[in-house]
Amino acid sequence: MSELLTVRECADFIRSRDNFLIMSHCRPDGDTVGSASALCLILRAMGKTACLMPNPEITSRYARFVEGLEPPEGFVCETLTAVDLAADTMFPVGFAGGEVELCIDHHGSNSRYAKRLLLKPEKAACGEIVLELANELGVKLDKEMADRLYAAVSTDTGCFLYRNTTADTHRAAAELIDAGADYGGLNVRLFRKVSPARLKLEGLIYSAMRQYFDGRVTVAFVTLDMMRESGATENDCDDLASLAGRVEGSSCSATIREKAPGLCKISLRSSFDVNSSDVCAKFGGGGHPMAAGCAMSCAPEEAAERLVAAIIEEWKH
Amino acid sequence: MSELLTVRECADFIRSRDNFLIMSHCRPDGDTVGSASALCLILRAMGKTACLMPNPEITSRYARFVEGLEPPEGFVCETLTAVDLAADTMFPVGFAGGEVELCIDHHGSNSRYAKRLLLKPEKAACGEIVLELANELGVKLDKEMADRLYAAVSTDTGCFLYRNTTADTHRAAAELIDAGADYGGLNVRLFRKVSPARLKLEGLIYSAMRQYFDGRVTVAFVTLDMMRESGATENDCDDLASLAGRVEGSSCSATIREKAPGLCKISLRSSFDVNSSDVCAKFGGGGHPMAAGCAMSCAPEEAAERLVAAIIEEWKH
Repeated sequence: MSELLTVRECADFIRSRDNFLIMSHCRPDGDTVGSASALCLILRAMGKTACLMPNPEITSRYARFVEGLEPPEGFVCETLTAVDLAADTMFPVGFAGGEVELCIDHHGSNSRYAKRLLLKPEKAACGEIVLELANELGVKLDKEMADRLYAAVSTDTGCFLYRNTTADTHRAAAELIDAGADYGGLNVRLFRKVSPARLKLEGLIYSAMRQYFDGRVTVAFVTLDMMRESGATENDCDDLASLAGRVEGSSCSATIREKAPGLCKISLRSSFDVNSSDVCAKFGGGGHPMAAGCAMSCAPEEAAERLVAAIIEEWKH
Repeated sequence: MSELLTVRECADFIRSRDNFLIMSHCRPDGDTVGSASALCLILRAMGKTACLMPNPEITSRYARFVEGLEPPEGFVCETLTAVDLAADTMFPVGFAGGEVELCIDHHGSNSRYAKRLLLKPEKAACGEIVLELANELGVKLDKEMADRLYAAVSTDTGCFLYRNTTADTHRAAAELIDAGADYGGLNVRLFRKVSPARLKLEGLIYSAMRQYFDGRVTVAFVTLDMMRESGATENDCDDLASLAGRVEGSSCSATIREKAPGLCKISLRSSFDVNSSDVCAKFGGGGHPMAAGCAMSCAPEEAAERLVAAIIEEWKH
């Protein structure tokens, strides 16, 4: 079990230590990379020695945030620090072991694997906590720190669109913009621009989308043929499961992805009309009431038929 | 020419008057409807008589904001007020005449048609100015006002995505959320949900998009066939010209819309590599350096050829 720290206690702990090695989570997103790299720069601004643990899964989208922050030759870690990392099952690929001295996180589900934990589950993004910590430490944010924290805060909220956004999230954004964050450029890069192949794939998905049950259920297909035709790779498949949810009047959306001939993975999202987890359980899957998943060994067409029948059966009249 | 007012002077003027008739602009968007309807509620909270001038072009998306705010039988206007309305060419359909006593606006290009003008061109949305005015007037925002101002601020910034967003915009959003705005529901309704026909249309547009000049130029087509096939109506065509701009690596995007057989309207957007206004001028159109338009009397295919040739000719090497 972790010792729970306040922001002030966490700042005191940081002041008392040196030689920080900062760890982001596996399959890294903007919040973990932005928060970890900003924390590294904040510690360096305090005169500390700090570097990032290499995370081989960082994509090109976030690669520039970690440039120059690798451990130098001969670096010996004294304070292993995890950022936005909820459980040891989320440690990055290639993690070489070692006790985590400090974890900074916003996941209420944090498994308390670290010796010390600064946890703020009310925050939409871990970047908001790192910002608060920088203020507590008396470090004036520069543009590089502000860029990384803006990326953290904006990506975890879908650019302030998702329901996890709070008034504090907006206040954090204002503070980061005041500190010089290039939010205009970051917004274009993080939220607007996609590869031509991704756009082609979206076109095929939208064209093939189907509605059932008087439009209350929408099913999107992502087939092997579509992947081939669009030229899309796994890199182009971020958040495809959210596209079907755009349809007005539809409160339940499924995305059926053909992973191999005869094998489909299904992602189901719903509101209060139907319990996604119950539906997916019928096919050996599971999840949460509003977002769940399962797999079926059949073609996409058949998967849709079976799934829609199960959804209608579970529908709360 | 208008007398320019500060926020304080505008508040004093409002206190001195009564019987407000508030006008939104033609082809109304979220900022003009949200700002006008919020101002109406703010004035009523002060004990004033205030109502909205009917605007027949208000779409279903914003209709509920104006419910119950129509002029009652026998209402006599004393203070005609325009909100987010830059020029008299933008007066709403059915405008019956009368001198505009007060205009509240954020368009730097405001033509000064009103007797008094509160102008803040540095604001991303007119809703931010109305919020400042409410604070100056000492009116505590309720949920209804906050919803409308949140809609105003968020729609004019594309949910805090566009470059016009400022730190102050985020501070306004935080204040509106604190005042009870249902930002989660509004975000879903305003930014996420679209009609099935719109999604179908997007699918067809993405599938038919073409790239030229080593991917630096993207052309999107919206043909009469696509409109027919998708079942989309004019209501589904908001902001179609922005779709082509999503392509990574492309700094110039054109949208060619077939309005009738043999007639195309073209919307061109670019960054610094090419001047959109100069390109469109070659075809008798015009606009701004980064966003311009023109028309061509030919089929979409031919329009694309002629346009791309002109873009390449104008390209700054």
